[in-house]
Amino acid sequence: MTAAVKQVVVLSGGVGGAKLVDGLAAVLPRGAMTVIVNTGDDFVHWGLRICPDLDTVMYTLAGLAHPQQGWGVADESFGAFAMVERLGGPAWFRLGDRDLGVHVMRTQRLGAGMNLTAVTAELCHALGVGARVLPMCETPRPTMLDTADGVLEFQDWLVRHRAAPAVTRVWSAGPTAPSPAVLDAIAAADLVVVGPSNPYVSIDPILTLDGVRAALAARPVVAVSPIVGGRAVKGPLAGMIEQLAGRAPSPAAIADHYRDFLGGLVIEAGDEEPSGVPVVATRTVMSSAADRARLAREVLAFAEVLP
Amino acid sequence: MTAAVKQVVVLSGGVGGAKLVDGLAAVLPRGAMTVIVNTGDDFVHWGLRICPDLDTVMYTLAGLAHPQQGWGVADESFGAFAMVERLGGPAWFRLGDRDLGVHVMRTQRLGAGMNLTAVTAELCHALGVGARVLPMCETPRPTMLDTADGVLEFQDWLVRHRAAPAVTRVWSAGPTAPSPAVLDAIAAADLVVVGPSNPYVSIDPILTLDGVRAALAARPVVAVSPIVGGRAVKGPLAGMIEQLAGRAPSPAAIADHYRDFLGGLVIEAGDEEPSGVPVVATRTVMSSAADRARLAREVLAFAEVLP
Repeated sequence: MTAAVKQVVVLSGGVGGAKLVDGLAAVLPRGAMTVIVNTGDDFVHWGLRICPDLDTVMYTLAGLAHPQQGWGVADESFGAFAMVERLGGPAWFRLGDRDLGVHVMRTQRLGAGMNLTAVTAELCHALGVGARVLPMCETPRPTMLDTADGVLEFQDWLVRHRAAPAVTRVWSAGPTAPSPAVLDAIAAADLVVVGPSNPYVSIDPILTLDGVRAALAARPVVAVSPIVGGRAVKGPLAGMIEQLAGRAPSPAAIADHYRDFLGGLVIEAGDEEPSGVPVVATRTVMSSAADRARLAREVLAFAEVLP
Repeated sequence: MTAAVKQVVVLSGGVGGAKLVDGLAAVLPRGAMTVIVNTGDDFVHWGLRICPDLDTVMYTLAGLAHPQQGWGVADESFGAFAMVERLGGPAWFRLGDRDLGVHVMRTQRLGAGMNLTAVTAELCHALGVGARVLPMCETPRPTMLDTADGVLEFQDWLVRHRAAPAVTRVWSAGPTAPSPAVLDAIAAADLVVVGPSNPYVSIDPILTLDGVRAALAARPVVAVSPIVGGRAVKGPLAGMIEQLAGRAPSPAAIADHYRDFLGGLVIEAGDEEPSGVPVVATRTVMSSAADRARLAREVLAFAEVLP
């Protein structure tokens, strides 16, 4: 890349990706970033459409995200949840009241015929989110896990089964069309950043959509490794790499996973560098807003010097 | 009536009726009471089915009702409402979080094909309500008001328009079949009590259903007047009597309204007694649990001595 970065597209799952997105939002000019978010974790709960990764990205960018836990908003109450539990309703997924307000609004809008891209834009606008946040597709495309306990939807496996059953395969069900805005955004991107999200359940669902891999192969792509010292920063990724790729969790496993479109990989300082791809090593764990912005600047600077 | 009351059916709207129902629940044996509740106020809000009168009766019997305001539960939070308001959603009807949990569960159950009678039974059972609570019908039958501002649904008129537009006519839309359980309960009743609810918008919707008036005419019926000193205890009733019946609010107006099936009327002590119907005068305002139980005992005792 010779010119300054103009348009940045980020592929993101939940927590890790959202933190990097937040850092990029702090250092990029308003209007320069589009976030394409995994919707493979979406599910219907209490009759409401819940989009965990979209919400995590949205809450993080809006400054509403819970500072510690990987989901939901800060200063939350759980009145509705307590009542549903008392009524014998499904209580395995803990929904806060403010969060519930979002799901109610989204479900109502979808029910009125608005598509998920438009609903997400409306919610983000109302919450003062400057970045463009795009769901990867309009129609449900649930991430399915073949496990020792049978085929499970992702949230079912992660939350209800506490990520315990061993996973033998991850796949996506449903229509394979991305939203048109997704392909347009990638085609117009000066840089694509793959966030430090779980490749199998957060990024692959995006990659399975028609035309996305080919579109990425035509753009400069930098990924941030979600592995630190042989472990995933958060969530069940390390075990998945062992179970699914049959190897130890490492930056090399991440690089190989994205090999067909990867232009550069940002890894945690001290981790073993993979071969065959430009690498920058830095501190990738984002414990503070300053960490997020610093990592974002380093990712952008790295992209500037890629061949 | 010569034998002791065995089965009592109460026709009820919201607050006033719910208080009397609560008193009856305190003095009748468990299993002796069926409450037939107006669903003409039901509406869909935030995509959820809301049944204000059913909920007021249920919350009151469960000991959850807010002690002062005429709707919702005590110790309530408003996190979802705050979020919906922030998102630019409809904020004219204030829904608490615990209350919302009920609406979410009800809507989900109805969406799964359960009828409103079964859903209500399930909710009441979960909340420990001993009385049988029946919605008047399974299908929406909205109470419509012809007003100076056009035709309005009841909640729209009451809450959004603050009951301000003058009402020229009250009518019910939708199918006219009561739930089968309603007619069965009336047919099996040793006594029917019409609660101190608004005749036009809380009791008439029940009376418009096929067969209800005829069934009531075949049973002993005692009504409790919702008028105290020429005013309604709560809500817009007094103005409605003036606008719709063209007369001053009084026990006589109530007696005439129910004339074709009324066997006795309980009125506030000091109010003018109507002619042509047996009357007992007592304190009908229920400010405490003791008031509710006392009035309930007086209603039952009055029924015992009716011709």
